[in-house]
Amino acid sequence: MQFVLEHTAGNARTGKIFTDHGIFKTPVFMPVGTQGSVKAITQKSLEEIGTEIILSNTYHLYLRPGIEILHQAGGLHRFMSWGHPILTDSGGYQVFSLSDLRDINEEGVQFRSHLDGSLHTFTPESVVDIQRYIGSDITMVLDECTPYPCEKEYASQSNELTLRWAERCRNRFQSSEGLYEHSQALFGVVQGSVYPDIREHSAKVLADMDFNGYAIGGLAVGEPSDQMYEMIEVCNGVLPTNKPRYLMGVGTPENLLEAIERGVDMFDCVLPTRNGRNAQLFSQKGVVNITNAQYKDDFTPVDIECECFTCRNYTRAYIRHLFMVKEILGLQLATHHNLYYYQWLMQNARKAISTGIFENWKREQLNLLHQEIQLTT
Amino acid sequence: MQFVLEHTAGNARTGKIFTDHGIFKTPVFMPVGTQGSVKAITQKSLEEIGTEIILSNTYHLYLRPGIEILHQAGGLHRFMSWGHPILTDSGGYQVFSLSDLRDINEEGVQFRSHLDGSLHTFTPESVVDIQRYIGSDITMVLDECTPYPCEKEYASQSNELTLRWAERCRNRFQSSEGLYEHSQALFGVVQGSVYPDIREHSAKVLADMDFNGYAIGGLAVGEPSDQMYEMIEVCNGVLPTNKPRYLMGVGTPENLLEAIERGVDMFDCVLPTRNGRNAQLFSQKGVVNITNAQYKDDFTPVDIECECFTCRNYTRAYIRHLFMVKEILGLQLATHHNLYYYQWLMQNARKAISTGIFENWKREQLNLLHQEIQLTT
Repeated sequence: MQFVLEHTAGNARTGKIFTDHGIFKTPVFMPVGTQGSVKAITQKSLEEIGTEIILSNTYHLYLRPGIEILHQAGGLHRFMSWGHPILTDSGGYQVFSLSDLRDINEEGVQFRSHLDGSLHTFTPESVVDIQRYIGSDITMVLDECTPYPCEKEYASQSNELTLRWAERCRNRFQSSEGLYEHSQALFGVVQGSVYPDIREHSAKVLADMDFNGYAIGGLAVGEPSDQMYEMIEVCNGVLPTNKPRYLMGVGTPENLLEAIERGVDMFDCVLPTRNGRNAQLFSQKGVVNITNAQYKDDFTPVDIECECFTCRNYTRAYIRHLFMVKEILGLQLATHHNLYYYQWLMQNARKAISTGIFENWKREQLNLLHQEIQLTT
Repeated sequence: MQFVLEHTAGNARTGKIFTDHGIFKTPVFMPVGTQGSVKAITQKSLEEIGTEIILSNTYHLYLRPGIEILHQAGGLHRFMSWGHPILTDSGGYQVFSLSDLRDINEEGVQFRSHLDGSLHTFTPESVVDIQRYIGSDITMVLDECTPYPCEKEYASQSNELTLRWAERCRNRFQSSEGLYEHSQALFGVVQGSVYPDIREHSAKVLADMDFNGYAIGGLAVGEPSDQMYEMIEVCNGVLPTNKPRYLMGVGTPENLLEAIERGVDMFDCVLPTRNGRNAQLFSQKGVVNITNAQYKDDFTPVDIECECFTCRNYTRAYIRHLFMVKEILGLQLATHHNLYYYQWLMQNARKAISTGIFENWKREQLNLLHQEIQLTT
């Protein structure tokens, strides 16, 4: 994996990341394909709307279909018929949020599957091995994502464990090889809750370990947006400029623009897909709650400015009807539109950075977003 | 609407039906879009797999979105963005099967909505009017679909009522006009349960009323296949050869081939879509129950002979995984494949008829279909 920085505008930056499954441009938004499928959309449609990389979840793939099937298939790319880059998380986040967690100790975490209660252990080494079986282009270290709020004492101790785990992951990664004749990269994860000094320390130690890129984890877990933005600034003040920076699990269009302004390159979030399935459609003017009665005879597109398949072919009235009668097509059209909008936002952010107008463009977008109902994190 | 007969092979026949929304070739299979959407597939994909006409349900559309919205939209074609022909049933079948039926009398049927218990009445005249608002290219008369088994006395009385209703529908249709500057057609429906003499009488009386086409209703309601085939023969022995014949709600691939051999031109059925969503995939060799454990590491397509989007891009192992983890994409891929297979079957039936090899081709297909698990009605 290679990262090439192209343009900067203040702290905002554009670049390209080269992988054996192709190039993706940054800032980038990665749709979430938790179980080897971005919900309610085909891989072909993902390509058509300009998706260059997706994210998938190690925890879920490890449980189903399991690494044996993925190995037999020749890795996740071939299993799910996606020829472009894939990033996988380490599974840590889902262990802490979904499973019946039994024990976290120096060695790793023991947990019970949220599906059948079966007992499993993730260690820094095993999550590297699992991601070798998955064959993702970008893999992540095992970390503990602290909740919000979190006592400083706990945040500090937890971060030290995360740092020791990061080193073990790196060592395992360096002493092992990919299984499918393409190279893989490994990112470290900065933790430290909302404490600037812990974040700074975390970023420094990880930077010295020389990962291929750095994620900022443990944010968007309930803290106010301003604190999230402050933490991004602290981390990016320390992290090397010549490596990509990935803000995990974020967020709203507004969050993305604020984070891009502060130097973040990569994002993933379930918001466009999950909210789409819950009848919330994004537009340049804010969120359209499509089941509202006001749309029942509104024969205009969701977003008059949007050129996506949904907006070129269907009206608000029809999409509202589909949601009211629980037709699957409603989920498909909403997902398609929302992901298109997120790709549109990233594409235009990159254009604004490279042409030196990012600050003005961003202000304009935020003003527009506040014209209709604004979504809060 | 105009029907042009092209080739015959025994009683089997090919033809073309011309409507203001385009031509469709017969024998034709119409995917079912109950509520203005064929479940889990876009209109664009329907086009791509060669769908030339779809069916929608008057009962459902009348309840939601309602005729006022459909009228404002400019009819169902524009509401759902489908520029090709649409056939609607009369709503009678759903009144008898879904609603809390209150009263059937000479005037019509009074029923309670299955959604909210609200009280409604369908008369022969009102279902014509509703279908005028919907704007379907082919509309159907109100009929009573008798259950199976059904006493002969009841079947006969019911059929007489259906015939009187058919005449009232025709009169209303002739004295009214379409609302959207395209012409509409009206089909009569032959009833009579499994009684040849009632079927024959029904077909004769309807033939004299000179409809644009004739449906054979009240079959595939639980009777043995052989009785269904016998009734088709009785009806088609009476119905005029220069009008299309539509066998309502049928059926399996085998049913379709047997009915085509007996001179049926049009079909609709929820089987490919509903069974697809229940993990049953059709193939030239029978039904693949994709959740079976045997497919978990089967990295071949659902049907090696099939050229559909699903089979060109995805393996049985992946589709099985999607169903096991309840991903919406599984429903999309199964629906796409099954509808493609039904279109493939019709296309090849037409080819076999026009080249004079229908009998052999049909026998070959039936043999193939019995190689794997065979679906029974």
